[in-house]
Parts: sequence; structure tokens; C-alpha cells
Amino acid sequence: MNSVIELLHNHRSIRKFKDAPLSGEQVDSIIGSAQMASTSSNVQAYSIIGVTDPDKKKRLAELTGNQAYVEHCGLFLVFCADLYRNQVAVSMHEQPFHQNTESFLVASLDAALAAQNAAVAAESLGLGICYIGGIRNKPQEVSELLELPQLVYPVFGMCIGVPDQAPSSRPRLARPAVYHPNAYNAGRTRSDIEAYDEVTREYYKERTQGKVLTTWSKGLADKYREPVRAHIRPFLEARGFRLE
Amino acid sequence: MNSVIELLHNHRSIRKFKDAPLSGEQVDSIIGSAQMASTSSNVQAYSIIGVTDPDKKKRLAELTGNQAYVEHCGLFLVFCADLYRNQVAVSMHEQPFHQNTESFLVASLDAALAAQNAAVAAESLGLGICYIGGIRNKPQEVSELLELPQLVYPVFGMCIGVPDQAPSSRPRLARPAVYHPNAYNAGRTRSDIEAYDEVTREYYKERTQGKVLTTWSKGLADKYREPVRAHIRPFLEARGFRLE
Repeated sequence: MNSVIELLHNHRSIRKFKDAPLSGEQVDSIIGSAQMASTSSNVQAYSIIGVTDPDKKKRLAELTGNQAYVEHCGLFLVFCADLYRNQVAVSMHEQPFHQNTESFLVASLDAALAAQNAAVAAESLGLGICYIGGIRNKPQEVSELLELPQLVYPVFGMCIGVPDQAPSSRPRLARPAVYHPNAYNAGRTRSDIEAYDEVTREYYKERTQGKVLTTWSKGLADKYREPVRAHIRPFLEARGFRLE
Repeated sequence: MNSVIELLHNHRSIRKFKDAPLSGEQVDSIIGSAQMASTSSNVQAYSIIGVTDPDKKKRLAELTGNQAYVEHCGLFLVFCADLYRNQVAVSMHEQPFHQNTESFLVASLDAALAAQNAAVAAESLGLGICYIGGIRNKPQEVSELLELPQLVYPVFGMCIGVPDQAPSSRPRLARPAVYHPNAYNAGRTRSDIEAYDEVTREYYKERTQGKVLTTWSKGLADKYREPVRAHIRPFLEARGFRLE
């Protein structure tokens, strides 16, 4: 295991940061790394908003579900899928701009690949990170706050800063549950879940001194019982995305 | 710039590989790294098919648009968004499984974060990688070949192997075009594109000994003139995804 793979294996989300901004050099390294990620056919269909303004960070903490670490991290990045810049480029040639579910997906994935490079770069600098999917709780308000044009939407946020906690690593599904040689093996899915349920039961029990008795599958059953963020599709359509 | 950030900055896509398989240890390191990426609320809504079977690789090369490197790389990974495993977990508790555009997005993003960790891990081992968006050219055929159950779809492929070429790095958009402090600056988009057009014009000219005279914006105008992969939405619906 080389030092890079060790770094990747040591990832854990950090939700408590010291009150310290990032240096300009750190930001350069992180954003430069994000930009070097692969991008579908070089469309580079993403943008990153780097939020350091205290009022905006405070407001974003509220909009993402009162997550204090959004306000108190050194830098809050908002990774956006961006078809606006592509559309402007096309308009310079007076050509039609055909977008659909595929282009929405490409832009969202471009943002994700850039984000993961940013995460790895930040962790290599000794910083901690936490993805904030809660940015999609109130995406219209976030878009207004960050002055996003049409055809740009916030995919997720990322807190970056100096860690002020050292949480343990959360156990993942067993390798064979996720990695299938040559064909998907659906025959083992249920027993893989049952095995992981035992692992997560112990993990939650230990982490809460026996107070939380749940499992991975139970958590998912609670989560999917009601529709999650049902506003996302109408929001995207209002922002100009054509999801056909 | 530390060695990890240097590695990320040195990324380039590799499209010619030596005829050499990966070792079991290399595969373990790469998949282990993928599994340690962040995942939305720990749903781990992705699976990875590792294709080494020569017949399947040959067929996948055809299905992705006759890309020879899909057949000739050491390992071809197919990163799949996977709500099937989540659905089975929920069904074990006899609860309803509500999915929508949000859950589709979460699963696709989970696959992308895992994939980028795999890419970084592979490159840290001296291997080369290339994402294959062409896996979405014929997604139904790919799904059948890899025996994907309903609610699993191939997001992208990734060739991994020992590089047999050393391409130059493709220039990216300038930093300020992509990274916006505190708010999106749409006022500069057009001039950013014009500046990048000059950079890409020189890049293509040099790389083709003056034969290709195009720019980034011209390439996008050509790309978006017709709808790209208009079959994606009906395909996803046929695979059980509810994009509402």
C-alpha cells in the first residue's frame, strides 16, 4: 500500500473544524487538483463557488439543515453542474443548444469528479472535508444567494478546514458486495446486506455506548419510506434543465 | 506542491495500454480506495463490475463505439449506479421504497466519487486510466451483457492498465473561469471562453501539425447541435428508475 492509497483508505468525514482559514496556496492546490480531474469530452461542465464570506456561510449553514460546520469550516465549496458556460459557448456560433437527461448527467458527474479530486488534495494537505448533500435541501435559495445563472445548479457542498476531531472510520459493505467480477451477482445481495447489518449494528452500538440499536438496512428503510427531496426535479426544470 | 497534488496535476487519459493484466494486489488497492470515497448518507448506492473476460471486453469495445483500448486494457471497470441493493435492504423491512430524481442523482454521484478514487489509486500505482462515457451509447446491451438487475445502470466505464503512450496534458479553462469567490460571476463567461478558445486553438494545431483548426467553443457547438444520447431517459425508465 503506497502513501496515496493509504491516504484514500484513511478518509473520514470531518464535522468539527478549528477556526482557521485556508492559505491562498492551499486553495490553489485544491482547485488546481479539481480542475485536473477527467471531464466528459472536455466539456468542463461544472463550476465551483468558494464561500468565505461569514454572512453567506452562516446563511448556507441554515439552508443546509443547520449544520454548524458549514459556517465554521475554513472554506465552504459549492460544486455546481454548469451547462450555462457550454450554452454561451454554443451561442457564440449561433448554433442550437440541445440538452437533455444525458447532458444534465454529464454536468453532474463532471462536478463530482472535480469534487473528489478536491477532497483528496485537501486531505493530502492535512485538512479535513465533509460533503454536504444538504445543499439540495433549499436549492433555489442557495442558487439565489450564490447568484447562479440559469443552467447552473448546486450538486453538493464541501466543508474544508483544519480538523478538530478524529472520528473513527465507518465500515463499508464487504468488497464482494460491491465488486463483481465480469457480471453482477444479484444472488448474493440479500446475504451481503445481512452480513453488513451485523457489522453496522456493532458499529452504532459501540459508537453510542449501546444507545443506538439499528442496522444499515433499517436505516435505509427509514430513509426511503417517504420521498426524499421531491422538489429536485421541478427545481431543475425551473433552472432551465430539460430532463427529457 | 506535495506528491499527491503532483500526482493529481499530472493526470492525463491513457488510450493505449501494454498487454498486461493487473495483479490481485493492484485490484484490491484500487477497489478498496473506491470503497473509501464519501457516499451520500452511507447509502453506498453503486456497484463496480470488473471485466477481464476477453470476450466480454471485446463486446464492450464494440458497444462503446469501437474503442480498442476497452478491449486491450488490463482491467475494464464499469461503475454502476445501484438502487437495487438499497431496494432489497428496504424490502427486508417490508417498507415502501420511494425513489425519484434525487435518488437517481445520489446513486450516480456515489458511483462517480468511487470512480475518481479508483482513478487516483490506479495512477498512484503507475497505471493509466481513461473514463469511457461511451458505455452509455448502448446501455441496454451493456446491462444485459453484465447481467445488471433492475435499478442498476452503467454510469461510465474505466480502462486501467500499464500505459503504452505518454500524451501531453490537455489545457483546462483558466482558474477564474471555473472558480468563483462567494458568487458566480456570469459577466466574465464570454471573455473566459474567448481566452480559452485561443489556448485550445494552439493546442489542437500543435497536436495535429496544423491539420485541426478548431476551438473549444466550436467543438461544443458541433457537439450540442443534435441531441446526444436521447435514449438515456427512456432507458433509465425501462430499468426501473422513476425520474420524477
